[in-house]
Amino acid sequence: MLNAIECSAVVASAIYGILLAARKQFDVVGVLAIAFAVAFGGGTLRDLFLDRPKLFWIEHDHYAVIVFALAVVGSILPRQLLKIEKLLPLPDALGLGLFSIVGASYAIDQGHSMFIASLLGVITGTFGGVIGEVICNEIPSLFRPAPLHATCSFAGAWVYLLINLTDAPGIVAVSAGIVVVVVMRLAALRWNVRFPAMSLGPHDESIK
Amino acid sequence: MLNAIECSAVVASAIYGILLAARKQFDVVGVLAIAFAVAFGGGTLRDLFLDRPKLFWIEHDHYAVIVFALAVVGSILPRQLLKIEKLLPLPDALGLGLFSIVGASYAIDQGHSMFIASLLGVITGTFGGVIGEVICNEIPSLFRPAPLHATCSFAGAWVYLLINLTDAPGIVAVSAGIVVVVVMRLAALRWNVRFPAMSLGPHDESIK
Amino acid sequence: MLNAIECSAVVASAIYGILLAARKQFDVVGVLAIAFAVAFGGGTLRDLFLDRPKLFWIEHDHYAVIVFALAVVGSILPRQLLKIEKLLPLPDALGLGLFSIVGASYAIDQGHSMFIASLLGVITGTFGGVIGEVICNEIPSLFRPAPLHATCSFAGAWVYLLINLTDAPGIVAVSAGIVVVVVMRLAALRWNVRFPAMSLGPHDESIK
Repeated sequence: MLNAIECSAVVASAIYGILLAARKQFDVVGVLAIAFAVAFGGGTLRDLFLDRPKLFWIEHDHYAVIVFALAVVGSILPRQLLKIEKLLPLPDALGLGLFSIVGASYAIDQGHSMFIASLLGVITGTFGGVIGEVICNEIPSLFRPAPLHATCSFAGAWVYLLINLTDAPGIVAVSAGIVVVVVMRLAALRWNVRFPAMSLGPHDESIK
Repeated sequence: MLNAIECSAVVASAIYGILLAARKQFDVVGVLAIAFAVAFGGGTLRDLFLDRPKLFWIEHDHYAVIVFALAVVGSILPRQLLKIEKLLPLPDALGLGLFSIVGASYAIDQGHSMFIASLLGVITGTFGGVIGEVICNEIPSLFRPAPLHATCSFAGAWVYLLINLTDAPGIVAVSAGIVVVVVMRLAALRWNVRFPAMSLGPHDESIK
Repeated sequence: MLNAIECSAVVASAIYGILLAARKQFDVVGVLAIAFAVAFGGGTLRDLFLDRPKLFWIEHDHYAVIVFALAVVGSILPRQLLKIEKLLPLPDALGLGLFSIVGASYAIDQGHSMFIASLLGVITGTFGGVIGEVICNEIPSLFRPAPLHATCSFAGAWVYLLINLTDAPGIVAVSAGIVVVVVMRLAALRWNVRFPAMSLGPHDESIK
């Protein structure tokens, strides 16, 4: 079950990366690079920050093969991806949930504090997209007003971490965390829930 | 004493990050991310490059709590930060000094050469701001003509490294290095000391 | 022989970095940073991803000294670099070949799959330039239609990996891999061989 979620999340992230690269008119090399960055970027940061000996995409190398194949096929048939795009929010929300909880659990298992674990959950769940957009020379959409994304990851990570303090079985904590992320994310998309943009006001002459 | 400097430096960096994010009209998530990037980016690169087992902000997790709280409060009361902004150069220069010397000392303690240690001092002291600006899609101000910044870090690191070769007690080397960084940085700000921009001349047709 | 190739490749990468920074009108600090990023970025990612205990430029610190000296001299005499620029494709292609094969060999020696090894070859060979351009706020040229670059690295890595499966001596596999990269790269430059840009077609309203 978790494997199926993980696999669908990697596929959804890769497709987002391919579409991002296609909109920047990259060639197949750029499509591959951005697909890898979006799909693997968050987990790579987590593994580096936690000093884990093997990056997850090096250890489980079938994910790299899947992303590679998707990017090559997507480069040849880009318009088919556009048709799939509207189906992506559900697997993407599931992936956000799964990766957030997995990231938090790796950190807590290493003995770090719950606060650090929640941050690593968010980094794992969301920073692939940030890295992809930074490489594409775009301001990360995660950081600008848009339907809640990192916030859902943060909330779900805390639900997982708090239930994990109790005697409840691990699967309950993991499931509850993922459900909270998915429900919050889909609700934020449905009702366009977002934070406002910051403003330093009309007296800040340094605004560009 | 060093703890007080470190804490004030983290606060000053975080406030720079919050103001940078506010000027890009990010939401609270973006403000948090840029505050973390500016405050922790340089030390994170140092810890990864030196293969230290625990990132400093994971080991000392109260810094992450402080930056988080600052970013949330700053998102609610951004104009108060503008008033504080003019007070920042001193804690920022102290932080530049402390982080540069700490970065150089970690490298020299691992047995690396003085030249490598001076580079790691500069990376620790200055690359948080670079990472924050790259994420914000801005050209890093560290790399364009502006009052000397990385150069102060480099000079102070060498003062520390050279005194460290002698029989002088460690605290003398550390203090002298920090003082050199702080005095150079404040002088560069006061008298606008800067390097010129490079130019390939009018015959370079590839200038954009 | 390999040492001479490696050294000329580091010099060629550093000069590309210096010219990139000069075209962005950076000062000497920016020139140093971009020269380091282009020359050392790919190998640094490789060493971090493979969890190697010492980054290659920290272990072999004469490379950092060479790049530092080049960047300082280049900042003073930028126009001399322009004259050298047209000589760079050959050492650059040699470096692409060498770094790609070395990256792939490090991964295969750690027991990773051939596919992962080929990806690490490409990352080692090409990501220095990507990092340099991202820091300079440019869209990476590696990802847009241009004479084949990463593709040459990928093909040469596979030639090395496949010969490495046989009983042939290691030097044969390494040499064949490097030759394939160099010949493909020079041919791609000579005849302007490139992949087309992706396009989502006129019906994609989200194109910017």
